[in-house]
Amino acid sequence: MLIVKKFGGTSVGNKERIFNVARRCIKDYQEGHDVVVVLSAMGKYTDDLITLAEDINEKPPKREMDMLFTIGEQMSVALMGMAMNKLGVPAVSLNAFQVAMHTTSAHGNARIKRIDTDRIRRELDNRKIVIVTGFQGINKYDDYTTLGRGGSDTTAVALAAALHADACEIFTDVDGVYTADPRKVPTARKLKEITYDEMLDLATLGAGVLHNRSVELAKKYGVPLVVRSSLNENEGTVVKEEVTVERMLISGVALDTDAVRIAVIGIKDKPGMAFKLFNALAVKNINVDVILQSIGRNGMKDISFTIDGKDLEDAIAVLEANRARLGYQEIHSERNIAKLSIVGAGMMSNPGVAAKMFESLFSAGVNINMISTSEIRITVLINENEGVRAMNAVHDAFDLAD
Amino acid sequence: MLIVKKFGGTSVGNKERIFNVARRCIKDYQEGHDVVVVLSAMGKYTDDLITLAEDINEKPPKREMDMLFTIGEQMSVALMGMAMNKLGVPAVSLNAFQVAMHTTSAHGNARIKRIDTDRIRRELDNRKIVIVTGFQGINKYDDYTTLGRGGSDTTAVALAAALHADACEIFTDVDGVYTADPRKVPTARKLKEITYDEMLDLATLGAGVLHNRSVELAKKYGVPLVVRSSLNENEGTVVKEEVTVERMLISGVALDTDAVRIAVIGIKDKPGMAFKLFNALAVKNINVDVILQSIGRNGMKDISFTIDGKDLEDAIAVLEANRARLGYQEIHSERNIAKLSIVGAGMMSNPGVAAKMFESLFSAGVNINMISTSEIRITVLINENEGVRAMNAVHDAFDLAD
Repeated sequence: MLIVKKFGGTSVGNKERIFNVARRCIKDYQEGHDVVVVLSAMGKYTDDLITLAEDINEKPPKREMDMLFTIGEQMSVALMGMAMNKLGVPAVSLNAFQVAMHTTSAHGNARIKRIDTDRIRRELDNRKIVIVTGFQGINKYDDYTTLGRGGSDTTAVALAAALHADACEIFTDVDGVYTADPRKVPTARKLKEITYDEMLDLATLGAGVLHNRSVELAKKYGVPLVVRSSLNENEGTVVKEEVTVERMLISGVALDTDAVRIAVIGIKDKPGMAFKLFNALAVKNINVDVILQSIGRNGMKDISFTIDGKDLEDAIAVLEANRARLGYQEIHSERNIAKLSIVGAGMMSNPGVAAKMFESLFSAGVNINMISTSEIRITVLINENEGVRAMNAVHDAFDLAD
Repeated sequence: MLIVKKFGGTSVGNKERIFNVARRCIKDYQEGHDVVVVLSAMGKYTDDLITLAEDINEKPPKREMDMLFTIGEQMSVALMGMAMNKLGVPAVSLNAFQVAMHTTSAHGNARIKRIDTDRIRRELDNRKIVIVTGFQGINKYDDYTTLGRGGSDTTAVALAAALHADACEIFTDVDGVYTADPRKVPTARKLKEITYDEMLDLATLGAGVLHNRSVELAKKYGVPLVVRSSLNENEGTVVKEEVTVERMLISGVALDTDAVRIAVIGIKDKPGMAFKLFNALAVKNINVDVILQSIGRNGMKDISFTIDGKDLEDAIAVLEANRARLGYQEIHSERNIAKLSIVGAGMMSNPGVAAKMFESLFSAGVNINMISTSEIRITVLINENEGVRAMNAVHDAFDLAD
């Protein structure tokens, strides 16, 4: 078997942990498998590099920032190579140039285009464990790029796809994918299996175990993904196309408290206004999520929508710059909101799921501000301070408890 | 003009120093010159990396060690790129892959074979300052290599040769090349000019301002080299083929206290014994310097030689392993010795230089143990505790004082 194993920064944060990871990889190797290991930068090293850079230049050029960032993973893989050697196993570390890991040109937010597998194959054929830098790539100009937050997950999945790996294991500090965040819902249960689509919705909704681009990629290439703990030998959660066991109505409940709501009040009720509004935001790369439009009255209507909290300042600036074109009366913004979502492939064939969710919220006395749905997801907007209570209520209503 | 400027680790050791270097380079750039900057790792960062590695594996594989080392210069060049950008000047940092800097395969001690200049030329044509990682290269397997101690000097000279640079400036923490180490000889004087050959002898003899391989390379390709201070604007010392001003009998006095002497006593006085002895050392890469062989007596002779202090343990081991073949009676080693050398292209055409040196040592009451000469150098072996006194005596005798 060819196994790709990805370990995050916490898992390689110090000497002991580096040796723990080395031993885990060596175990598979000694069972005769080909092992490719993908590593992030150690602990908070990437944050340290940001501090170092911003001390020099508060707005460092992104190209030079990527040049700096990439040393983090190179440090991890070199030290891992030394650790495996110390344990008597041949290993070789490779950076993005050595692999080579070709990406688009966008510094800080590149996408993987193509991976040369020759070097990795050759090293595996020589019975070496291959240790690859996560998060980083090179673009067509031969410059370093980085893949953005959670990018090492994407590196691992892309490598697994390119190498036609038999398994891609993402090691994290939790045991797998849960029906809800166990820190907020004590009765949350670990899932044995989940579909790519469900995982994608959970990832996008802030369940945070996997980076959503890595799940997209796994789905696209059918990479068998396992999410498991780097701290124990528990089985983890398998992410795949079709769930074979314990088919459930819904797989998980996610709560996202990063969202903010903007209400644009008294916009003219004529065609094209919504387009103008959201186009202005889109050109600034501001992602709009749940949208609610009031019915027009006296030639006026209101449009509310949610965006990520980090984009609030930019969004307000865009709206104010376009005040004349949009002709609205005022803008309100509200940070005290939360997005509560349920996700499940099962809901496609089961009417009444939404009703059940709304009923449970009503029983818990939680007010719903806005609603948005997709085929396998229902999202409601509620007050942030009711978030955890609402999450538990919904989790109970769908019998997700352990 | 195309100028290559090299700054060592101390010169980029913190934020202020990074900006100082940036401003110095920008000054040349704004005068219309093309500027290529070669940097070492910041301050003691390379030592920190060694500590990090040895904590994992006290004998780390050299290939992985080079993979770790190379992040040091990458950090320096990325931060320098940010600093120059902050000062409003376009700059681009390049590592060994991006240049590309091709070397031999020997990890930790590679030699530069070939430098692709396309990328650097292109960036210079776009009026960017190009910042290159010193000390590192890539071998034919696409693995990182490093050039050994002082390697960044060699990177700078090799780049200057490949780019046909008009000047190669090596910035250091002293003002230039002195007639003797100013910390030991208070009257030492800075030289305006020195020949490659003299510089080479001084570098090899431990004068330490430049790495000897960089001088060899400069001589081979006729690279005009300047050694100057990173702390002030003083003129420095020009290293070139022929000295045009202030032609002096000797250019400098060097003292090397790292040498140790080994005496092999009672070796058989028959042909081939010296060959066997030194061949045994050569195959272990132990460099032998001054050699003295006694005249045979009773079918026996003694052979004394000096080696670098770090090789003493290995040399003793080699000699003991070959005791039967060499048939000697005993081995002595002596650490309390120093090599005092005078270097000067002028001595070739001036007999009596050696006599003058010996006379000054005699007057100072310094005993000479061994003597070795080349065309432009005379070296004597003396007791280490008389080293500084002897150095001053010779410096005075040749009127080198300021």
